[in-house]
Amino acid sequence: MTRLFTDDSLSLHTDLYQINMAYTYWKDGIHERKALFDLFFRKMPFENGYAVFAGLERAVHYLRNLQFTESDISYLRSIGEYDEAFLQYLRKLEFTGSLRSMREGELVFANEPLIRVEAPLIEAQLIETALLNIINFQTLIATKAARIKTVCGEDAVMEFGTRRAQEMDAAIWGTRAAYIAGFDATSNVRAGKLFGIPPAGTHAHAMVQAYRDEYTAFRKYAESHKNCVFLVDTYDTLKSGVPNAIQVAKEMGSQIRFMGIRLDSGDLAYLSKEARKQLDEAGFHEAKIVASNDLDEYTILNLKAQGARIDTWGIGTKVITAFDQPALGAVYKLVSIENERGELEDTIKISGNPEKVSTPGKKRVYRIISRTSGKSEGDYIVLDDEKPEEQEKIKMFHPVHTYISKFVTNFEARDLHEDIFVSGEFVYELPTLTAIREYLKSSLGLLWDEYKRILNPEAYPVDLSEKCWNNKMELIQKVKEQTEKRLKQRQLEEENNE
Amino acid sequence: MTRLFTDDSLSLHTDLYQINMAYTYWKDGIHERKALFDLFFRKMPFENGYAVFAGLERAVHYLRNLQFTESDISYLRSIGEYDEAFLQYLRKLEFTGSLRSMREGELVFANEPLIRVEAPLIEAQLIETALLNIINFQTLIATKAARIKTVCGEDAVMEFGTRRAQEMDAAIWGTRAAYIAGFDATSNVRAGKLFGIPPAGTHAHAMVQAYRDEYTAFRKYAESHKNCVFLVDTYDTLKSGVPNAIQVAKEMGSQIRFMGIRLDSGDLAYLSKEARKQLDEAGFHEAKIVASNDLDEYTILNLKAQGARIDTWGIGTKVITAFDQPALGAVYKLVSIENERGELEDTIKISGNPEKVSTPGKKRVYRIISRTSGKSEGDYIVLDDEKPEEQEKIKMFHPVHTYISKFVTNFEARDLHEDIFVSGEFVYELPTLTAIREYLKSSLGLLWDEYKRILNPEAYPVDLSEKCWNNKMELIQKVKEQTEKRLKQRQLEEENNE
Repeated sequence: MTRLFTDDSLSLHTDLYQINMAYTYWKDGIHERKALFDLFFRKMPFENGYAVFAGLERAVHYLRNLQFTESDISYLRSIGEYDEAFLQYLRKLEFTGSLRSMREGELVFANEPLIRVEAPLIEAQLIETALLNIINFQTLIATKAARIKTVCGEDAVMEFGTRRAQEMDAAIWGTRAAYIAGFDATSNVRAGKLFGIPPAGTHAHAMVQAYRDEYTAFRKYAESHKNCVFLVDTYDTLKSGVPNAIQVAKEMGSQIRFMGIRLDSGDLAYLSKEARKQLDEAGFHEAKIVASNDLDEYTILNLKAQGARIDTWGIGTKVITAFDQPALGAVYKLVSIENERGELEDTIKISGNPEKVSTPGKKRVYRIISRTSGKSEGDYIVLDDEKPEEQEKIKMFHPVHTYISKFVTNFEARDLHEDIFVSGEFVYELPTLTAIREYLKSSLGLLWDEYKRILNPEAYPVDLSEKCWNNKMELIQKVKEQTEKRLKQRQLEEENNE
Repeated sequence: MTRLFTDDSLSLHTDLYQINMAYTYWKDGIHERKALFDLFFRKMPFENGYAVFAGLERAVHYLRNLQFTESDISYLRSIGEYDEAFLQYLRKLEFTGSLRSMREGELVFANEPLIRVEAPLIEAQLIETALLNIINFQTLIATKAARIKTVCGEDAVMEFGTRRAQEMDAAIWGTRAAYIAGFDATSNVRAGKLFGIPPAGTHAHAMVQAYRDEYTAFRKYAESHKNCVFLVDTYDTLKSGVPNAIQVAKEMGSQIRFMGIRLDSGDLAYLSKEARKQLDEAGFHEAKIVASNDLDEYTILNLKAQGARIDTWGIGTKVITAFDQPALGAVYKLVSIENERGELEDTIKISGNPEKVSTPGKKRVYRIISRTSGKSEGDYIVLDDEKPEEQEKIKMFHPVHTYISKFVTNFEARDLHEDIFVSGEFVYELPTLTAIREYLKSSLGLLWDEYKRILNPEAYPVDLSEKCWNNKMELIQKVKEQTEKRLKQRQLEEENNE
């Protein structure tokens, strides 16, 4: 865009209340106290059995470039609410904290910390909004794409959704998330350039209209391109489109690679079967049938059930917007904060809804993998000083229905977090997209099939260690007592006033 | 982000098939033939009675900066599909065409051209994807926001959705679209900086947790800020939150402006009524109650029906993602193209679904406003050489059910398109956001209430002139005959071959 501010940065990509809280902390002199925040979501998106973590690379870029520029500071000054010394403090602010995170491509579940931030309160607070914005979207799309990939099996799947994406960043980062989840290609050329995702696409209806005659259009395309997929539904798929495609393929012979045809409207089950017959009768057994048109995991499953002869799937709107649930509700909660004596003190957010009570404390997340089956028994959240990898036996129990429990032995306890920043230093090597894709595949291999089906999957266990659970219960009790105490105190004061 | 390409541009923010079609046109020497494309949607989003056009400013930025950089060209070269001369041609390409568009804030309807592009075929083709990406999203969000604003009436409404937005661009441009539609403020500070939207927000639960004690947190906030809205639901809204807010407000007296409280969970109807009582009893009649928590037009309508005492609405996820319909399906169709004799020849895209047949030809869109009632009678699409503003009487008839018709006299025919680019020159003055908001208000004033209700609105008439309708029918007939002719020809050839 025509830049109003040549030094525009993403540091103001935050909610105003973060700045206002930062100001209160700064005025009160507690802004550099160490704070711990967990980023997690509470409900599985699409009622899927797992989610696919994505967004770390973008979050790393954001944090490494976090700096308030002159125009950012001028804008804040114009609000007229803040001391100049505070603005000068912000001007020098960088991310100096530590951050541990799931890897991109990791399978993640509700109520486990995806990212753990340990930083001066003011920094940890300011970055909340952007981190959530990034992780919520990319994890959502990677998960939706994984569902679609599940039903496609070994068929090729292409992401075609840019025109329906929620603005440009969503198109770019969304198609990257889909690629992480196993999609094979993108229509977005810039995503190809930025991320090395294979770009795909041949022609649209407009080209057929531009030549007014479908045969001519296919012929012209074939004269200028080696790899040809002809879009056959501009006028009449079976009477015009497929016969014209076959005619051009025959005429051009080995001058082109006739990759196949694309269907973009109508009854895809019927049309694909009839088109397959025509292609086979003409001897083009290798030509593929590509289908697009508002497809998602449900329509694909149904098309397969009807015996549709579709080889390759082009997915647009439904994946790039996560159409059936276009937001993931990840939150970012303070779980521990340094007190006036310099000690970390755990904190909790109480709620009338028990599922919404956060889990306090500095924690780690382990995946408990049975050495017998090679499969995961569940995830296990512990306090930071626990070492499940050194234990012989662990007790896993449901964090709400605590009577549901099991003992696990002969396991590998795998720490799911990587160190990304340590005291402000970036210590992680961002993996390639290829490595991320492979990592997801291997992670899926650890999961029993029951968790992977797209309808009514089993609930994967995410359990707290006893120590972690007790810590939570004690804190709930403490907060309740404090609230009661203040209430009684206030009643007394009011009675005295009357 | 850490830039892999310092000269990265948005020119590759397009689908690969656009580049591949461009290559075919270029190889065939027809790439500079004049082409006309219409951008329109076919179905009203959210079944609303109108949509609010938005996105033009961003589209203008995109078009004015359209230029393939060295790294763009290098990437295309790496695909290995294109002649070097073609790449050098692209390197010099700019937008040299003409573009007419609805203004931002205009009320728009299904099946009318929102944007009309008249440009060399190759340029018009390449810009399709980005134009759709921009207009689809921003028009969708402006429309959703307008629905929410409708039920809020004169209450203040704030956009709080950045953390749930589909990546960063969606947060920024989405909140701008919501502001166009009548929202009053945004939580996103960068949107405040870039667009001058008033930013809003005070504090989150985290601040209450950071001080461990709610009273202390409110007090510290009040000591550092003049304007105070306290979030009262961290522990217990009525027993703890509201009493603490009142206590701090009393203590601070005129040192602060006690603007009110915010409710973010629980039964908002009940809590707002009880909180109102507590505030009134304490003498804070002016203090407002702000509510947030997954609100949209339906929940707000219900809260109002229950007599909730909410003054200000904070809307997040539901508006910023257009949660109930997260994509608008606008398309971009070739309607006319220069032939080998240099004349414009109209084209059409046929479909089995009659609603999907495009309307051919170079067209204009008029709003027909009755001078008697001051209200709009409908929109009227004509061929470019028609002049309804000079007619005394026009016949408006339904484009599908043609027997539904009326004659209109004593009207003003208002051309809805503005010239934005003329032969590559940018000739438009982008209005301020304030002017856009005012324009929307005046446009809504032209509409009968029946079109504005959020449930089951009347269908607003969008009619074709007789000339435009006849042109379409003739072209449908022509295409059908051509397809039949080619089919017979092929059958003959096959019989000869056998």
